Amino acid sequence: MKDVIVIGGGAGGVPAAIRAAQLGADVAIIEAKEFGGLCMNRGCVPFGHMMLASNVLGAVSLGKKLGFRFEGINPDYGELKKRQDELIGFMRMGVSSTLKKNNIELIEGKGILAGKGKVAVNGKIRSCKNVILATGASWAKPDFIEGDMEGIINSDDLLTADELPERTLLFGRSPWLLEIGQFLHRFGKKVILATPDKSILPNESKAIRTRLNKALKTEGIDILREAGITRVAKEKGGLSVTLNFKKGSDTLAVDRILYMERAPSLKGLGLASVGLDEDADFLEVDRRMQTGAAGIYAIGDLTGLQERHYSHLSSEGALIAAENAMGLNSRINRLTFARILFTQPQVASVGMTEKEAKTGGYDVIVGAAPYGMNPLGMLLSENEGLVEVVADKKYGEILGAHFVGTNVAEMAGQAILAIGMEGTLEDLARAAFPHPTLSESLPEAARNALGRHIYLP
Amino acid sequence: MKDVIVIGGGAGGVPAAIRAAQLGADVAIIEAKEFGGLCMNRGCVPFGHMMLASNVLGAVSLGKKLGFRFEGINPDYGELKKRQDELIGFMRMGVSSTLKKNNIELIEGKGILAGKGKVAVNGKIRSCKNVILATGASWAKPDFIEGDMEGIINSDDLLTADELPERTLLFGRSPWLLEIGQFLHRFGKKVILATPDKSILPNESKAIRTRLNKALKTEGIDILREAGITRVAKEKGGLSVTLNFKKGSDTLAVDRILYMERAPSLKGLGLASVGLDEDADFLEVDRRMQTGAAGIYAIGDLTGLQERHYSHLSSEGALIAAENAMGLNSRINRLTFARILFTQPQVASVGMTEKEAKTGGYDVIVGAAPYGMNPLGMLLSENEGLVEVVADKKYGEILGAHFVGTNVAEMAGQAILAIGMEGTLEDLARAAFPHPTLSESLPEAARNALGRHIYLP
Repeated sequence: MKDVIVIGGGAGGVPAAIRAAQLGADVAIIEAKEFGGLCMNRGCVPFGHMMLASNVLGAVSLGKKLGFRFEGINPDYGELKKRQDELIGFMRMGVSSTLKKNNIELIEGKGILAGKGKVAVNGKIRSCKNVILATGASWAKPDFIEGDMEGIINSDDLLTADELPERTLLFGRSPWLLEIGQFLHRFGKKVILATPDKSILPNESKAIRTRLNKALKTEGIDILREAGITRVAKEKGGLSVTLNFKKGSDTLAVDRILYMERAPSLKGLGLASVGLDEDADFLEVDRRMQTGAAGIYAIGDLTGLQERHYSHLSSEGALIAAENAMGLNSRINRLTFARILFTQPQVASVGMTEKEAKTGGYDVIVGAAPYGMNPLGMLLSENEGLVEVVADKKYGEILGAHFVGTNVAEMAGQAILAIGMEGTLEDLARAAFPHPTLSESLPEAARNALGRHIYLP
Repeated sequence: MKDVIVIGGGAGGVPAAIRAAQLGADVAIIEAKEFGGLCMNRGCVPFGHMMLASNVLGAVSLGKKLGFRFEGINPDYGELKKRQDELIGFMRMGVSSTLKKNNIELIEGKGILAGKGKVAVNGKIRSCKNVILATGASWAKPDFIEGDMEGIINSDDLLTADELPERTLLFGRSPWLLEIGQFLHRFGKKVILATPDKSILPNESKAIRTRLNKALKTEGIDILREAGITRVAKEKGGLSVTLNFKKGSDTLAVDRILYMERAPSLKGLGLASVGLDEDADFLEVDRRMQTGAAGIYAIGDLTGLQERHYSHLSSEGALIAAENAMGLNSRINRLTFARILFTQPQVASVGMTEKEAKTGGYDVIVGAAPYGMNPLGMLLSENEGLVEVVADKKYGEILGAHFVGTNVAEMAGQAILAIGMEGTLEDLARAAFPHPTLSESLPEAARNALGRHIYLP
């Protein structure tokens, strides 16, 4: 009888298993494909690596402004891919080794709930006191075609191909399309980005969206809005795609359509055997990461829609679930959730936007500081960078912080701590962040909200 | 009668004047040279700009690992210098304009205290209720020569020269020598770094120093330790310098010796007219930034030795001094002081080191997480990166955090907030920082201190 069986060995399952083992649990972890999951094998890590390559070309652009002359720059996707596959292999070995070092039993196979305290895997039933479900999401089928069609790919297909497609339509709502689109564009490929929405990143504040959009446009990446695909046909050497818009339509010739919508995979997990609804859009959990069934916890992509599929949310939930499974009483802080995008400029959004805070009934004050008024931002010519702070007017409690610009994925941690520790505008306004850094814009945005910015005009 | 006269229009004086004006003060600010001070005109800003150029070459090295082939890269120092001079000019105009917009009277001249509530400037005596002294430090004369010698320069001289020296000995304790040395090296110049100390950055923890040292060495930058200059002589085409070491000595031919020790300039400020000691090493202030004389505040480099000359410390003190001058009761948080170095890898050190905490009587626990175990760190091949957290054992209160690696100047803000808000290891350990970021190493270092790291072997 195991104390904890974790089903799914990705960004959520692995830390859940380790945390449970640290607390004295006898743990098994079941993985159907590859330890490390989507994030390590086909998500954050390879795309993070591709973004670094993309950023090298960004650094070259900055270099030209700084007086460097570059005579010739040739990217080699084969080399990039080789390095990233090697690194992923190395990281995957690291994951297995860390799990084993924590005396966790590794099981390769598909784990399925088989009633209370029972998990079926590889034809056997294993007993346990607690289950942590961490099986993630899976690709949704495009609704603009029937069945499969060669040339319509997701990011897994992109990663396994030896070469980058020459002409790609990146279609849909996934924010990762922006990262991949920028990477392909910088690698000299033709990209067309199209979204069904009125804007890219519709959840972000208008200032953030507009600034990212402008940066992409300046770079030569246009985004088609309110677009739908009405027809896809095989054509000599590629695909012919008809897009319709609010007004009019257009037919394009491309090699690939990249479509990457994901949805929690609730079917086939045996949820019904423990009384859970496998027809829901996602598996609901409380702040303790507990499902409606006693002893069954769930974390990560399984527990939310695509817009909440971030591996740091999985690993945060992992520690909470493991601790509760082992008798502690831990709760996730829903106010510190961060959305991150590794485009250049990056986007980071922590906590509530102004709109969300108003909807939530807060009397809101907002402050902002553009990188254009930040000394390091000026040196970087970071005209599109911006930090926004959203706070409750009465006590100055920080409710959210929203960033666009260089290094904001690292700066997000400041907002996560400030909100997590129930900080106020006053705490931020007085923080003596190092000079010259982009981080200095966060205290200045807080001072702006308080009506006492120092460096803004 | 002014409410506040600020003497010195640099990184401290400018925000002090603005903050006082915000609080309703009638303010004058006196500057003898250039508004923006050392930091903007001859310090953080131009060297920050040079570091960006240095980092472009770092990005090229990373690019090569990522499969890029670069055919030829030619830096043009003239272009770099032109851009930085233009940017500084632009920023300087911005400073004047912001001061004027806040209805602050700008006075060009040398301000001297002339008794209680009196400041002499340009031959006139101005009356005021409060004075904020923000005149900074000045260059110390090298003790290894008598008088001046052509070829022995400080960073001001480096910045005004049209070309970079071909062969430079960078001698002394200033950490900025490391930044400048790396820049010169990356621009293809010969550099010899020599310190009188046993190690570079002797105030930092052993792990941080060792790792920076290794990174510099890998790049081809060696550092001579426990060195002294015993003889400098003009020689055809340059200088002949004899260095002595613990064992033996060496004579080198160089074009320039860069020596940049600075000391608070207490003489000539009229301190004696208000009963303050102008023979001290620095001007002592309390946590309200008040000197021993009523109505006289002091901030910035004037108030500490070179190892505390950071412009963010000046601007932090500025707000405190201005608020107290205007009747509020604000105190500086001495626990959040940050030392920053913009080498590549960067160094950031916030709060107490382990050694300082032990000396301070704390029962200390320390945790660390290397970038080599951080997913983004692995992608960046950041073998020398490291985050260390120092905490009080009993309550887990964060006392310090120390970083070496990419982007740590931005990550320092996380530690500044954590310490400023009296956070604990538990607060850091549970922070869900975005993935994949280097920041993730901070919660992991906190978990390591608590004996429950997740990803470390």
